[in-house]
Amino acid sequence: MATRRTISIITDYGQEGPFAGAMKGAILKLNPDVNIVDVTHAITPGNIREAAFVLDTTYRYFPENSIHVVVVDPNVGSDRRGLLVSVEGHFFVGPDNGVFSYILAKEDVYAVMHLDQEHFFLNPLSHTFHGRDVFAPIAGWLSKGIESSRLGTPIEDPCKFDLPVPAQVGPKMWKGVVLYVDHFGNLVTNLTQEHLPLDENGYPAFVKILLGQGEVTRGRRYFTEFPEREPFLLLGSSGYYEIAVPNDSAARVLGLKAGSAIGAIAR
Amino acid sequence: MATRRTISIITDYGQEGPFAGAMKGAILKLNPDVNIVDVTHAITPGNIREAAFVLDTTYRYFPENSIHVVVVDPNVGSDRRGLLVSVEGHFFVGPDNGVFSYILAKEDVYAVMHLDQEHFFLNPLSHTFHGRDVFAPIAGWLSKGIESSRLGTPIEDPCKFDLPVPAQVGPKMWKGVVLYVDHFGNLVTNLTQEHLPLDENGYPAFVKILLGQGEVTRGRRYFTEFPEREPFLLLGSSGYYEIAVPNDSAARVLGLKAGSAIGAIAR
Amino acid sequence: MATRRTISIITDYGQEGPFAGAMKGAILKLNPDVNIVDVTHAITPGNIREAAFVLDTTYRYFPENSIHVVVVDPNVGSDRRGLLVSVEGHFFVGPDNGVFSYILAKEDVYAVMHLDQEHFFLNPLSHTFHGRDVFAPIAGWLSKGIESSRLGTPIEDPCKFDLPVPAQVGPKMWKGVVLYVDHFGNLVTNLTQEHLPLDENGYPAFVKILLGQGEVTRGRRYFTEFPEREPFLLLGSSGYYEIAVPNDSAARVLGLKAGSAIGAIAR
Repeated sequence: MATRRTISIITDYGQEGPFAGAMKGAILKLNPDVNIVDVTHAITPGNIREAAFVLDTTYRYFPENSIHVVVVDPNVGSDRRGLLVSVEGHFFVGPDNGVFSYILAKEDVYAVMHLDQEHFFLNPLSHTFHGRDVFAPIAGWLSKGIESSRLGTPIEDPCKFDLPVPAQVGPKMWKGVVLYVDHFGNLVTNLTQEHLPLDENGYPAFVKILLGQGEVTRGRRYFTEFPEREPFLLLGSSGYYEIAVPNDSAARVLGLKAGSAIGAIAR
Repeated sequence: MATRRTISIITDYGQEGPFAGAMKGAILKLNPDVNIVDVTHAITPGNIREAAFVLDTTYRYFPENSIHVVVVDPNVGSDRRGLLVSVEGHFFVGPDNGVFSYILAKEDVYAVMHLDQEHFFLNPLSHTFHGRDVFAPIAGWLSKGIESSRLGTPIEDPCKFDLPVPAQVGPKMWKGVVLYVDHFGNLVTNLTQEHLPLDENGYPAFVKILLGQGEVTRGRRYFTEFPEREPFLLLGSSGYYEIAVPNDSAARVLGLKAGSAIGAIAR
Repeated sequence: MATRRTISIITDYGQEGPFAGAMKGAILKLNPDVNIVDVTHAITPGNIREAAFVLDTTYRYFPENSIHVVVVDPNVGSDRRGLLVSVEGHFFVGPDNGVFSYILAKEDVYAVMHLDQEHFFLNPLSHTFHGRDVFAPIAGWLSKGIESSRLGTPIEDPCKFDLPVPAQVGPKMWKGVVLYVDHFGNLVTNLTQEHLPLDENGYPAFVKILLGQGEVTRGRRYFTEFPEREPFLLLGSSGYYEIAVPNDSAARVLGLKAGSAIGAIAR
């Protein structure tokens, strides 16, 4: 008996309505012997960069041969293409609008296919709900083991945005950005150990993080390491440094959000 | 090996508490080899019409022989009956309060059963949580293949509300209503191609939609077809016309909600 | 063929981000043939008592040999231990911070293990996301049938808080507390039939419930039993008395919340 395949789903469809449910139904209609994992349906509507980030920080924890469907798709119904991206151990399905930017930049990509084989789509095909009518059936067929080469035509020019890499602006100075604000209000930056190493005790080796107003000078290894109620820097679980405030939302306290510029001075 | 059955769930139980979880546990306790799909637990508390609409726009995308459990049940514990409705390819389980109105009006109904066989319920049976104590076990038994005739007694008078059908008020004039506001703030109306056909290019063939204040005169095939930031009409993915505003919530911008009256003049 | 095991998950990770998804991926990577049930990811951040209550009101409805993972873990990365608690028919996995207080007080506990076998964790192991790196893999291994004795070392001193038991302050007078506010705004108290029995008609046998301001004198068997719009007391589906207001949130109308003190006079 073949192992059950897993399909993860990331959308901006919301929790309250019919969209995510119809999509999951359409997958199971093709393959009832698959695991469907709701990663989230609460991406900010239309926010492609947020979806790309959430995908980047989840897919590698899934089983070999998982299929990851990402539907944040403001231009659904236009001539934007649908894509299937294959890498070692993972498949990705969704619109060609940048949601796979991290994958395309970081992974050894086997193939990028334009999903142009309409006989695999639901019929009739709506202009406004390709999560249900295109991407769910493609994921369903893939999970049944159909050859990915049958689902589309190879292309070389998928849409991608440049990853927000910190810029070096001095011998030990970096200019970075807030990538994401998590559920607890922690500010996930694009700084990694490449920019600020950990010292021999596991603390970030830095002098300060510069915010629009104010700065962060304390480093921590975990959230409640010290009782002071001041902002601190710690290495987060996705490999990015995070700015946090004890028992509060750093985003709210510091007035920062995704896209906010920050500076960093290494030690 | 029999195919795994699928049980979809629609409730107003919320995401934050124990209700949806206990219900899913009670299903799996009877049948661990079933797919459970959370369609939504975020129906507005007690809103039977909203639940009926979400059911109507999702169930047909699910596999053959799916079981759809709908628990928006303000009168739980009273003498309102529990129901099992069977149609071609689908079973529906929930309270007898109108949540199945679309199904009863649109489908060729095989049977409507009053769920009066208490030995299939959890024991003790609470007065306030029939999602867990009645409807989950009934769905579990059904998914194991028990004959539906054993689960209740046929009835002829299930509760249903009249579907909100547009009224013709002139040769090409219709009086309609907003059925639903979706996650993006789009206003789903009860107008279909029966009232406003699509023209030869796929655009709604209409002169205008009349709102309480203002009107809509532009038609689109998909959300981002034109850059103007004015409201437009498009045919939505459930077959109903929707009023949308580019990159914004039409409900908020236009001040309309579920139940708001609209007018339509066909071309 | 062995029956599929079920893993239930309760966290404060939120619905919108990567945390719950990565956790579920990490479980399926070890065992794709398991049922994962999201009970909730919307526990108030860091609220251990709320998580403990939601666990207590859900786990017993799950199948035999279910595994319940509870991750509300403000001190993640510190030296707080990870635990595996075994009772008749259920396993519990999570941090040693009180989330299992109801289980430890109410169940016949077979074993409490400190999860100190790091080769079962993800590698590298983060300091901030043990839901993904520790508790998900442990649940995955357990669901594959590994002996629980291999996963840790028995301990005798798990962290627990005292359950909030009503205090008797007079012959028929009790001092209690609001344990939880549910999705509908109902106030779940810690009073049970032990304190206020049901009378021969199924109504709470009480004179009054005393609130900070005002009182409740009406008893009901179910929510919509009488049309008056005054607050009432009813026996809830978890065995605790609840204070409700017809078609409204009792928490909002009465200005009470989890932790609010109440008094009760039995009849």
